[in-house]
Amino acid sequence: MTVETKTAEFASISLDSGASLAPVTVAYQTYGHLNASKSNAILILHAFSGDAHAAGISAETGKPGWWDNTIGPGKAFDTDKFFIICSNVLGGCQGTTGPSSVNPQTGCPYAMSFPVITIGDMVQLQTKLIDFLGIERLVAVAGGSMGGMQALEWAVSYPDRVVAAIPIATTARHSPQQIAFNEVGRQAIMADPDWNDGNYYSSRPPGRGLAIARMVGHITYMSDESMREKFGRRLREKEKYGFDFSVDFEVESYLRYRGNQFVGRFDANSYLYITKAEDYFDLTNGAGTLANAFAKAQARFLVISFSSDWLYPSYQSQEIVRVLRRSNHDVAYCELPSNYGHDAFLVDVAEQSEVLRGFLESTSKEKA
Amino acid sequence: MTVETKTAEFASISLDSGASLAPVTVAYQTYGHLNASKSNAILILHAFSGDAHAAGISAETGKPGWWDNTIGPGKAFDTDKFFIICSNVLGGCQGTTGPSSVNPQTGCPYAMSFPVITIGDMVQLQTKLIDFLGIERLVAVAGGSMGGMQALEWAVSYPDRVVAAIPIATTARHSPQQIAFNEVGRQAIMADPDWNDGNYYSSRPPGRGLAIARMVGHITYMSDESMREKFGRRLREKEKYGFDFSVDFEVESYLRYRGNQFVGRFDANSYLYITKAEDYFDLTNGAGTLANAFAKAQARFLVISFSSDWLYPSYQSQEIVRVLRRSNHDVAYCELPSNYGHDAFLVDVAEQSEVLRGFLESTSKEKA
Repeated sequence: MTVETKTAEFASISLDSGASLAPVTVAYQTYGHLNASKSNAILILHAFSGDAHAAGISAETGKPGWWDNTIGPGKAFDTDKFFIICSNVLGGCQGTTGPSSVNPQTGCPYAMSFPVITIGDMVQLQTKLIDFLGIERLVAVAGGSMGGMQALEWAVSYPDRVVAAIPIATTARHSPQQIAFNEVGRQAIMADPDWNDGNYYSSRPPGRGLAIARMVGHITYMSDESMREKFGRRLREKEKYGFDFSVDFEVESYLRYRGNQFVGRFDANSYLYITKAEDYFDLTNGAGTLANAFAKAQARFLVISFSSDWLYPSYQSQEIVRVLRRSNHDVAYCELPSNYGHDAFLVDVAEQSEVLRGFLESTSKEKA
Repeated sequence: MTVETKTAEFASISLDSGASLAPVTVAYQTYGHLNASKSNAILILHAFSGDAHAAGISAETGKPGWWDNTIGPGKAFDTDKFFIICSNVLGGCQGTTGPSSVNPQTGCPYAMSFPVITIGDMVQLQTKLIDFLGIERLVAVAGGSMGGMQALEWAVSYPDRVVAAIPIATTARHSPQQIAFNEVGRQAIMADPDWNDGNYYSSRPPGRGLAIARMVGHITYMSDESMREKFGRRLREKEKYGFDFSVDFEVESYLRYRGNQFVGRFDANSYLYITKAEDYFDLTNGAGTLANAFAKAQARFLVISFSSDWLYPSYQSQEIVRVLRRSNHDVAYCELPSNYGHDAFLVDVAEQSEVLRGFLESTSKEKA
């Protein structure tokens, strides 16, 4: 299944900061077919560095989507039944308006004049896309990590537009440890002289800083155990310690490789803006308590966490479940056993798929 | 109790890499009195960024030592009974020969011409100091984190010179996750243009890179829970999000402060060399298995870990204990409950002190 990224442009968007953007473009892909009553749509929400290419084979790159093991004919998000939409987030760098986009007022990239955005702003842009597609109500909103934050935000801010919400490996508010790891990444980027206060679009991007930020990220996405299994203390192309500061261990080589690879596909300023949106995410903002935040939610919830995920640990999912349960919301919860750490929602998907499939089936029945 | 740092110089040292250093200086402090038979000496081994100033009030800075809550009259390491020695590690920057020391061959700092060193090399230099002090056998070698690695190395490499070994919050070999965090720190330093291939001693040191390395370190020293207790999502000197990239959260402010503070007291090249020594640490090197490594050890062991320490998790201590127990070595083990993460061995010391006190008492009796 070959897929193409489409775009939709809207006149403007008013942001949580008080600023606005005009115009604003969103990049998205769709899989499957929207039925006549437009009642079979599911919105997939991507994680920090994801993009609109969630499934199928990209017409542009020939690569499979980031959740291709979970979306497709007969898969958990079954494109024989559902019309699946995935859009790139606001502030990103994969076709949706972000700091690397040209500001029509100046003819130059926004860079750091781009307004600081929130998870709420990302979701607001998604509502514009859903309106544009003529869809009133989504069967489900689903995503892992930052995608899970968006799913929660949908359920709380647009309660009448969401039948079911599926937040995976996520939290109702970023913890100080999560903020701290993001802040290290931001500092690494801003410490790179090539960052140049964000003005690098006509010169060399801050590749070393961005690579370091990504290295930190990758450590937090894996578990201690999965790193032991994958790398151990194996040396890279040598039989003894080098007694110098070139690469000794395979894990070092892997991190350097992944760090540098990321530089080729991601914008450093987007890294700053999107991590900030994560750090600002707190469902209790304005509501006082999590119970208040969920008071208006009407969706049924499926909350999933993974046993070895230490970046978004299960206790954060369990807090969401406890609060929803106490206020008698419809909520199912699974902590799935996995050694893959936070990456599990992307790679260790057999059991997750079964859980998703069952939940979506019962959601469709209930709705009907 | 005011204490001064002393130094001892030795003609040369031959290193694991095959290189040698001549001469080599070690900075150390002592507390309490060596008895006539020189049989009451304990060697304290410091962690990554520690120094010789473990106890008392520094005559130079007026500050208490890093383990002053554990070493002193009537304390766990009781200076009324024991003669306590603490030396700064080889490769450091607090008085012992390291990359910032002047190479007598050139009249310039070694910088990156300093040879790569190992935990074994650090311990070898300590044996020279112990010889110099006329001490044949130590009642105990004790330390946390990298200090624990040195304690293990002592027990394995100099079995007849150690009555008891007390490795705390440590491991018999650095895991890929531990290597990965160190590698991020090294990359952050080496990415700073001020690092200049290590040649910054007559110009500006790579402060931004070193600060980022230290920020990562501090995250790993704390637990998720202790960060929630200490910072939560509290904002720093503001009531609302700033919607910019200055400091929003207290945890960001704390990390920036600690990162910058570190730059004033630590040498970036020492950071590279000492983290490399940690990463090379593997007691099974040359021995094949951990059981083989411990085969010649004669010491009794007290192994301590902390429940919330995720940088040096309890399972690493438990592996040491299992191997020692299986080969019928004398080994006691305590996993102490604490929320402080890896920092616990420095700050949450009430229970640790009791355990240490009892173990040292029984060690003294057994010896007598």
